[in-house]
Amino acid sequence: MICTVNRDSDTLYYDTARNRLCLIDQTRLPGEFVTLSLHTVEEIEEAIRLLRIRGAPALGVAVAIGLAVLANEMHPYDSALLREYAKRILNTRPTAVNLRWAAERMLEHAESQKALQDEALRVWQEDIDTCRRIGEQGSALLRDGDSVLTHCNAGRLAAVRYGTALAPIYVAAEQGKRVHVFVDETRPLLQGARLTAYELVQAGIPVTLMCDNMAASLLANHRIRAVLVGADRIARNGDTANKVGSLGLAVIAKRVSVPFYVCAPFSTVDFDCQNGRDIPIEMRDGSEITELWYQKRMTPRNISVYNPAFDVIPADLISAFVTERGIIKPQDLSS
Amino acid sequence: MICTVNRDSDTLYYDTARNRLCLIDQTRLPGEFVTLSLHTVEEIEEAIRLLRIRGAPALGVAVAIGLAVLANEMHPYDSALLREYAKRILNTRPTAVNLRWAAERMLEHAESQKALQDEALRVWQEDIDTCRRIGEQGSALLRDGDSVLTHCNAGRLAAVRYGTALAPIYVAAEQGKRVHVFVDETRPLLQGARLTAYELVQAGIPVTLMCDNMAASLLANHRIRAVLVGADRIARNGDTANKVGSLGLAVIAKRVSVPFYVCAPFSTVDFDCQNGRDIPIEMRDGSEITELWYQKRMTPRNISVYNPAFDVIPADLISAFVTERGIIKPQDLSS
Repeated sequence: MICTVNRDSDTLYYDTARNRLCLIDQTRLPGEFVTLSLHTVEEIEEAIRLLRIRGAPALGVAVAIGLAVLANEMHPYDSALLREYAKRILNTRPTAVNLRWAAERMLEHAESQKALQDEALRVWQEDIDTCRRIGEQGSALLRDGDSVLTHCNAGRLAAVRYGTALAPIYVAAEQGKRVHVFVDETRPLLQGARLTAYELVQAGIPVTLMCDNMAASLLANHRIRAVLVGADRIARNGDTANKVGSLGLAVIAKRVSVPFYVCAPFSTVDFDCQNGRDIPIEMRDGSEITELWYQKRMTPRNISVYNPAFDVIPADLISAFVTERGIIKPQDLSS
Repeated sequence: MICTVNRDSDTLYYDTARNRLCLIDQTRLPGEFVTLSLHTVEEIEEAIRLLRIRGAPALGVAVAIGLAVLANEMHPYDSALLREYAKRILNTRPTAVNLRWAAERMLEHAESQKALQDEALRVWQEDIDTCRRIGEQGSALLRDGDSVLTHCNAGRLAAVRYGTALAPIYVAAEQGKRVHVFVDETRPLLQGARLTAYELVQAGIPVTLMCDNMAASLLANHRIRAVLVGADRIARNGDTANKVGSLGLAVIAKRVSVPFYVCAPFSTVDFDCQNGRDIPIEMRDGSEITELWYQKRMTPRNISVYNPAFDVIPADLISAFVTERGIIKPQDLSS
């Protein structure tokens, strides 16, 4: 059964009547709520590269719907051209495995426009169901009155609904548990400050924002039940790539004995990667750091900049993976 | 022997001819180089509170010169009023011990305006000598071609000249060693991006800027000789308060076996503090985080903010203190 689209709140959806990939432009939040309707490969590439849509699960769904839309725009339909488009879109961002996973799944249904459209709708629906189950699994780890820490945005805006790391918070709230969320602002692009804080406030959940470098102070001095983050790719040994800063959090959480949970759909596991060294890490433009989210330059010229988008958390620092299949220890991932 | 003032580059100095505390307004860097001349208690309080002058050693010197200037402005001189002024200035920032150290030292010379002026000039001179010796001690730890990581600004702009954590870099450069400095931008007020990057570029030293949350990725994936930071207060057991984010760096450095050095004048040790729990931590206004250095608000409203200015590094994470008296292990601090 396919859910009804919530045009006011779903992060992205397939407008089949107009054949458009519709998504919230996340570069405009929290100041403005703007929905885009895309139907060309250039528009889709640009939306992914500029992070109008981001978050590993949402990127997978965007690729699925995007390919169905592109197929439906062809008169006549040309599956070889669709494969070209898939390659172009996969080149936009290398780290999250979900783009590749979604593209491969769509290309298995490339026999007709109708088959592609049906599969895109299934991918969309499954994301909602999967995130909901992640939330149910994760909420069992939380008690009324708890505080948790999260990094970047792995919430509703990183998927269709619910999200991954924030899904346990939303389900806990439905169950009447009050959970306070501490949020890293997540430099350079401030997904924590702009997106996570925004969606939690919208949902009526109490949130405290801080700079990324304050997490150690928080974990050392306050009672935090757990650190919850998402994942962009999980190697078969459990090493996990996620938004840069996650590694540091995991090291600190271990030092102060706070559990560190990675919340992700099982499709985030890439069994082709033996360990974290096999995961490609995207390096982004230095101007993201020197010019503070496209505002005024705040640094001297003549400096170089180190701007990896992700880092890799070794499996020994991860307490467990919270997935739609249950809560899984790193060593049990491949069994 | 008192050095000659370098009006173009000293962070602060005593203009005895005009009886003014002169200092570079660091809130305007790197965009503008503006020197302020202060002579009222309101001006001095404001400069410290708004971080026009900051950095523990520089704050100590500012208090010393400031009190001498205020004494010289009195007609007739009133030592009871000077004690009032000292109290007001000490209330501006609670964590750095140098303000108190400098005020106590000045009040021991409160018998005359002349004695205060002479003592202020001695404090200024000693800061230059002390930082120079810290640089000589620390440069012995560095080899040609090394890379180091630093946090916040503990350079020339945090003292009169040379600085503390950057003094080893400057002395190494004089000795012909090329050292590459990775710099944390240091949210919320970007002292690393604005000040450390600025002064290193001015000195011709290669610098790579990054966000605070990228330090773990750097330390895990690149060969870094050492992490060098300053200190705002050191307890007698070696626990050290420094700019927030230092604790996280120390935990990560320990995990990847990179030495973590705290560079500071010996006067930063507060023998009245048994350990880090005795060090007061300044909490600053949340707008520093939500409004990105007084620009546009980037976060939703209705959130709370956690904004400690400092955190405490437990002594077991500190490889050694680099001081003017030599390189001292934490356990040897009180012996």
